[in-house]
Amino acid sequence: MLESFRELADNYSVIFFDAYGVLKNFGGVIDGVLDVLADLKREGKELFVVTNDSSRSPKKMAQNYVHPEAGEIFPEDRIISSGMLARDFLRAKVRLKPVAYLGKPDSSYYITSAGLKAIPIAECTDDTDIGAMALLDDEGFNWQPDINRAINLLRRRTIPVVVANADTVYPVRGNDVAIAVGGIADLMESALERKFVRFGKPDAYMFSYSFSRATAITPGIRRKDVLMVGDTLETDIRGGNKFGIDTMLVLSGNTALERYQFNIDVSGVIPDYICESIVT
Amino acid sequence: MLESFRELADNYSVIFFDAYGVLKNFGGVIDGVLDVLADLKREGKELFVVTNDSSRSPKKMAQNYVHPEAGEIFPEDRIISSGMLARDFLRAKVRLKPVAYLGKPDSSYYITSAGLKAIPIAECTDDTDIGAMALLDDEGFNWQPDINRAINLLRRRTIPVVVANADTVYPVRGNDVAIAVGGIADLMESALERKFVRFGKPDAYMFSYSFSRATAITPGIRRKDVLMVGDTLETDIRGGNKFGIDTMLVLSGNTALERYQFNIDVSGVIPDYICESIVT
Amino acid sequence: MLESFRELADNYSVIFFDAYGVLKNFGGVIDGVLDVLADLKREGKELFVVTNDSSRSPKKMAQNYVHPEAGEIFPEDRIISSGMLARDFLRAKVRLKPVAYLGKPDSSYYITSAGLKAIPIAECTDDTDIGAMALLDDEGFNWQPDINRAINLLRRRTIPVVVANADTVYPVRGNDVAIAVGGIADLMESALERKFVRFGKPDAYMFSYSFSRATAITPGIRRKDVLMVGDTLETDIRGGNKFGIDTMLVLSGNTALERYQFNIDVSGVIPDYICESIVT
Amino acid sequence: MLESFRELADNYSVIFFDAYGVLKNFGGVIDGVLDVLADLKREGKELFVVTNDSSRSPKKMAQNYVHPEAGEIFPEDRIISSGMLARDFLRAKVRLKPVAYLGKPDSSYYITSAGLKAIPIAECTDDTDIGAMALLDDEGFNWQPDINRAINLLRRRTIPVVVANADTVYPVRGNDVAIAVGGIADLMESALERKFVRFGKPDAYMFSYSFSRATAITPGIRRKDVLMVGDTLETDIRGGNKFGIDTMLVLSGNTALERYQFNIDVSGVIPDYICESIVT
Repeated sequence: MLESFRELADNYSVIFFDAYGVLKNFGGVIDGVLDVLADLKREGKELFVVTNDSSRSPKKMAQNYVHPEAGEIFPEDRIISSGMLARDFLRAKVRLKPVAYLGKPDSSYYITSAGLKAIPIAECTDDTDIGAMALLDDEGFNWQPDINRAINLLRRRTIPVVVANADTVYPVRGNDVAIAVGGIADLMESALERKFVRFGKPDAYMFSYSFSRATAITPGIRRKDVLMVGDTLETDIRGGNKFGIDTMLVLSGNTALERYQFNIDVSGVIPDYICESIVT
Repeated sequence: MLESFRELADNYSVIFFDAYGVLKNFGGVIDGVLDVLADLKREGKELFVVTNDSSRSPKKMAQNYVHPEAGEIFPEDRIISSGMLARDFLRAKVRLKPVAYLGKPDSSYYITSAGLKAIPIAECTDDTDIGAMALLDDEGFNWQPDINRAINLLRRRTIPVVVANADTVYPVRGNDVAIAVGGIADLMESALERKFVRFGKPDAYMFSYSFSRATAITPGIRRKDVLMVGDTLETDIRGGNKFGIDTMLVLSGNTALERYQFNIDVSGVIPDYICESIVT
Repeated sequence: MLESFRELADNYSVIFFDAYGVLKNFGGVIDGVLDVLADLKREGKELFVVTNDSSRSPKKMAQNYVHPEAGEIFPEDRIISSGMLARDFLRAKVRLKPVAYLGKPDSSYYITSAGLKAIPIAECTDDTDIGAMALLDDEGFNWQPDINRAINLLRRRTIPVVVANADTVYPVRGNDVAIAVGGIADLMESALERKFVRFGKPDAYMFSYSFSRATAITPGIRRKDVLMVGDTLETDIRGGNKFGIDTMLVLSGNTALERYQFNIDVSGVIPDYICESIVT
Repeated sequence: MLESFRELADNYSVIFFDAYGVLKNFGGVIDGVLDVLADLKREGKELFVVTNDSSRSPKKMAQNYVHPEAGEIFPEDRIISSGMLARDFLRAKVRLKPVAYLGKPDSSYYITSAGLKAIPIAECTDDTDIGAMALLDDEGFNWQPDINRAINLLRRRTIPVVVANADTVYPVRGNDVAIAVGGIADLMESALERKFVRFGKPDAYMFSYSFSRATAITPGIRRKDVLMVGDTLETDIRGGNKFGIDTMLVLSGNTALERYQFNIDVSGVIPDYICESIVT
């Protein structure tokens, strides 16, 4: 009873794609995906990536999706990362002071592009006058000393903490997973007994942000023109539903064919469509 | 070190007000508030109420704020309730089937105005073919039988559940509080081991929705033109900050003068301004 | 691959039974159970009920289990209810002052048998000088006014609150469930942002208490002589395992034949044995 | 209004002491503590340490408390660590197979003393046939690779996981804290969506275990003969109260003089006595 992505796509002029599990997996871009995307683009669809990945800049992410003939599928402004909402928060709420961060140097793009100085937690001392802290990525630092240092820095300062990726875990090779920076945020919140400012799906704000971006590029679109395609009920589908756009679950990533109906029943998160993948 | 609302208001063309604890309290509209609002309106400010109250329609709420000379302060389209986001969700995701609800008859406005039939939980049987459930208000039903009935209806159906008011408690007479419908939602979620779709502050989507409404009425405004005024750090200020607008905490409601600095320190939620109230 | 209760029982001299889902269900004592219990007793086994039910006194519960020939299976001192731990807490920690409670009049046994006066929440005023509050049962009071009253009483007093039944829901007719007093405790804890003192399985203390009782009656027993038989992984089996006694899951109640392996895998709670029921 | 430990101690024949914040701090044993303990011992009091520290064996912990004249204050069997409950669990529930662990080599005492082989997580492969996992200490391993490895090992096996120390954080130098192994357990539980088996205060089972030990050494004692002395409301006092023994909060560690009344009011955890420390 699965439906066809290509047939359903005809009904929408704007398509939001989750990246991991939909367009790519641990081995890179999924076979056939670039051709499908190039076709859609040729048909005039407006295509966007809507991702919780804040480990790299949109520009670097865009380089993953280059079709041999059609060229770059997603120009930089078509890639919307939860990190961009964190960047806007820092720009609006932190003036002038540097921002301490956990993550790889690449991820600090979301601080520096807000016009602020980024300092790795490992280089902060009690005297460093920081204006905020940003949790950007699970890599690029030494967990035990740096998480403990981050907690103690926050015990002595009343500053905002942003989490640029709400995910708790992310898939890696095979069926393995790894703790994502959202999981590290859980640990720190629990130790500090306070809540940080988190960005990313399933937050409906991530979708209203993406919709605003789409409207700026293609004025006049309505929510009913937009389809969200994702592999995860709890982020892609829950958030798309809450924002009121149509949602499609694909079974090429997190959610297996044998389990999707069970997962829908226990979560109460109901996609409008279910397809095997975008290439079948 | 408190600041003056009237002086700060000069810097903004659009002001979002929380209702309870800012404009009114258990005794009704706070003395002097209508005069302040009328003055702001005369100066050309665009004024909005942004509230988690989904017990009545915006039209009924608007009747609270009528100035003897300036007339109605908030026309119906200036009152933005979390119930309206729930209504839009129902309109987008539930087609044709009736919606079962917990709440007073008045609160069913948020279902019927989506063009859907509203049925009180008490009148649902196992055979009633409902398309969604809506938790609208803590009053208007008999808790024990109706909460238990709602849980069992949901154990047999895979349908979405919307919560039109995210608050856990709300203030009543004196220093007392009462369990709000968000608290009832917590209880039901825990019993069912699933999560519902919740609307309202501090969700940044409530603010992006309000900002869109403001933009539709006053084209061209930017976020820096908007001030959110609220009495609760965890909803008004946390959400306004996350959306990237300026925020003002007033001490006329939930947050007491003796406690606000402590509350800010332990929560890490930092308002841009702190004022005693909007009338002082 | 299910095992036989009767064969396994031979290896133990003391058996702890959960009541609901093992010995009885919505229709009363399960067919054949009284005969099995009478046989075990004849063989010299020491039999105990270990239950989270605190709605009635052990004496009243004992009346459920009378065999036509063997007579009373469980003398009063063989029935161990979580309410008894709550009673001991009240006796140790509340001296002289009355205790306010939520529950049926029958459940107040656990207060009065501690030598303390029991007052229904509905009869407490702000002036009533109570020494503790006890949540005993989900019935016997009017939820909305009494839960709200209880919360406000606690906002003005620093007194302990005991919860005599840790369960969130309990099964009723058919496949339906009802919110138990542990669920009401969750709601109140969330509204008050504090934690109460909860008694009952899966708390290992419930098992050490039962083991002490068994030792008092039958000196010299060791943990390896005791088997816990229950229908719920999260309470009976988790708690029995933690206390270090052998555990048997029966499929005559909460846990269905088709689901038990899945439930074990996702919970990580592993019974030593699995049997269809105690009568097969 | 603080009371005197020395005067109150006269009323008890058995005293349970928390270690960190009561007997010692970051600088070692607190000045004067050994003399007080030696005096109590001379008076015939039975003294025990009841601690969540599972990083070392009781024998090693005992070496901290040697009085120049009175000698060893706490013989090995007077030191009760949450690790011992974890050891008993492993002994009862894991037969023959090795146990994978997170912690320093010293902490593996709690596995090997159960007669089981201990393997550091870092040395486990997918083929290692482990019978359980134990979280013993926050030190002695490389957090990022080892926590991720532990999670993936557990995603492929249905085995019990024990947490030998329920604390989320622990105090270090100055006012700093560090994430304890209980916090790491939170992170792993959240990523796996399951609950582990946790041992330690405030679990009342920790107190019933300690009381059984005390009874074995000094037969005939009753709960009213025992006093629990601790510096933390949420562990020492909450757990001692739940078990029904008298509790004393000291202000020499976690709980500051300026904050204790506030902390009692918001937590609802009420010690029977409050003293500055055991040496004043």
